[in-house]
Amino acid sequence: MKESKILVRVHPSPYPVHIGTDLIERLPSLLSRCAKGKRTVVVSECGIAGRRVIRALRKAKWKVDSITIPSGESAKSFPALLRLYGRLLSAKVERRTPLVAVGGGAVGDAAGFAAATYYRGIPLVHVPTSLLAMVDSAVGGKTAVNHPKAKNAIGAFHQPVLVLADLTALGSLSRRDFLSGMAEVVKYALVFDRGFARWLGAHWKGAVIHKRPAELARMIRRCVQLKAKVAASDVRDLKGRRELLNFGHTIGHALESATGYKRFRHGEAVAWGMRAAVELSLGRGWMRRPADRGLASTLLKRLPAPRWPRGLRRGALVEALKSDKKVAGAKNVFVLLRGLADPVRVRDVSRAELNRALERTL
Amino acid sequence: MKESKILVRVHPSPYPVHIGTDLIERLPSLLSRCAKGKRTVVVSECGIAGRRVIRALRKAKWKVDSITIPSGESAKSFPALLRLYGRLLSAKVERRTPLVAVGGGAVGDAAGFAAATYYRGIPLVHVPTSLLAMVDSAVGGKTAVNHPKAKNAIGAFHQPVLVLADLTALGSLSRRDFLSGMAEVVKYALVFDRGFARWLGAHWKGAVIHKRPAELARMIRRCVQLKAKVAASDVRDLKGRRELLNFGHTIGHALESATGYKRFRHGEAVAWGMRAAVELSLGRGWMRRPADRGLASTLLKRLPAPRWPRGLRRGALVEALKSDKKVAGAKNVFVLLRGLADPVRVRDVSRAELNRALERTL
Repeated sequence: MKESKILVRVHPSPYPVHIGTDLIERLPSLLSRCAKGKRTVVVSECGIAGRRVIRALRKAKWKVDSITIPSGESAKSFPALLRLYGRLLSAKVERRTPLVAVGGGAVGDAAGFAAATYYRGIPLVHVPTSLLAMVDSAVGGKTAVNHPKAKNAIGAFHQPVLVLADLTALGSLSRRDFLSGMAEVVKYALVFDRGFARWLGAHWKGAVIHKRPAELARMIRRCVQLKAKVAASDVRDLKGRRELLNFGHTIGHALESATGYKRFRHGEAVAWGMRAAVELSLGRGWMRRPADRGLASTLLKRLPAPRWPRGLRRGALVEALKSDKKVAGAKNVFVLLRGLADPVRVRDVSRAELNRALERTL
Repeated sequence: MKESKILVRVHPSPYPVHIGTDLIERLPSLLSRCAKGKRTVVVSECGIAGRRVIRALRKAKWKVDSITIPSGESAKSFPALLRLYGRLLSAKVERRTPLVAVGGGAVGDAAGFAAATYYRGIPLVHVPTSLLAMVDSAVGGKTAVNHPKAKNAIGAFHQPVLVLADLTALGSLSRRDFLSGMAEVVKYALVFDRGFARWLGAHWKGAVIHKRPAELARMIRRCVQLKAKVAASDVRDLKGRRELLNFGHTIGHALESATGYKRFRHGEAVAWGMRAAVELSLGRGWMRRPADRGLASTLLKRLPAPRWPRGLRRGALVEALKSDKKVAGAKNVFVLLRGLADPVRVRDVSRAELNRALERTL
């Protein structure tokens, strides 16, 4: 399978995202292009990918320090962050030593934030190992940790110097995690690219069920292209462009928060959020083309999501919406669809409108 | 006295530094130019200046949340930082709410780092109240907190949108703190500007002893101009330009560290460091012009510094030098002077050379 490379055009240093199989073994030569010397620190969750990265670098005579951090959200706690800083200091990591973050989205977020703030920033390389991280969190420069009072409340923009999406790493991903990542894939299709939505409808079996490398790579490449374009056009998330990536996330985040981040994978909550956002759009008389509605419905139905919790009161969800960070001027911002690939940001969703949409969603 | 304004030309948003008397009362109108809405959060150490800022803003009908943090280095601990984040969250500070940091260098560093990392960065206004903060830390975008293992190890570059150096605030500064700040003033003169060094020699009484507003303002303005130029030419401290600001700081930091940050004010340690750096320069046969040597010696003698600790072994200082963060490739970088305003970065200072210079310094 051909490897592909996408350039993320951010100021002052554009960076490449490589997508392909067995890329980790090429990391040493790719890293040489953006690092002085042959010294690096690998921050990874326990797993095959981290060991592959370390082996490849050492084989090419790099001096490698290895730091293991917890997987999942516990990597993003303050105590875990302080431990990570301490280990970077003990290893005498210097300002020009690149940090290679290997793992899923949470590991990339936490290690990325450490790289952003250790001696005011050291070079960062992402080697995402989950579908979610490959198509979303590893591209665009967002890093974050959690405050006890709010998820992702503390963070920084820190663009990587290199991203390696090695499809081989997806082999060890659970089916549930893979499908959670598919929610973000479907999001890109619905929000930005009707052609991609059609392709995804036609190639679901090959890309998702059979994970055929060529189809999988094509799918991930398209997502990365779309993310790269949006991220580069609104680097610090201030112009509204990047907010479009939050399709399905307003209700998705509220759902995660109202259920204590335990019941749903991120993508599963976003799948519910996208269904609700489509209902909100339909309720406004948008999405008039039957083909658009059909395609959106087909793709969303293919995303499994745990049952909506029976005990979850509507009020609890509304409370969670109120404390969402994307509140600007005390109003939630919803991304809705006038049609497929025709997104619009909306601030005037009323409580009644929201209730109707939620009823139709469930 | 005429107020003056210096523009710091950093990408993508240049920002003004205002210098003058009774500027705090003008903060509301200046802030209106760089903030949407009339909402802000003031982070200050307990003191007159913080209260003046809050009063001025409320009088102009701003909605102000006020957060008090410890003064001095304790503001820069992780527990203090976590408390600050918590209070920003409780106050529902949003991504576009400007944070006004009022205080000395440590408060600016800590509040600045919080502003850099709260929801990936909110607008920051510095109202420095110490001479050190006015001429150095409030300009240039460096923010930091301390890790238990290393001072300033965790930080971010976050340029302010506005800096107000209100000379009135210096009235409540202790003589010792004021003179500690003078070390940085002398540093700018010796490293960058022979004319300024001469002016400083001639106006020491007016600017430093009598603190006459016009002379004080002129002195601070020149320092800010020099700092702004260097900071803008090397925003992320990667090109070596900004390292020149570390004249006197290599040994100064080691001295602070070896004495547990208790015995010396920062500027006092830097004064010792500058004396040693001049001796190192002389030892290499540099600083040949007698006028240069005389001026450097005169200015350095005027900076008081606590006696060099009798019990401080040379070895302890060398150990502290070894663990200094400015180690690049395990070598300390010293800034020396070939002549006045002719600085050079040097990496090959030998142990013997250092010992000789330290002996002559003491």
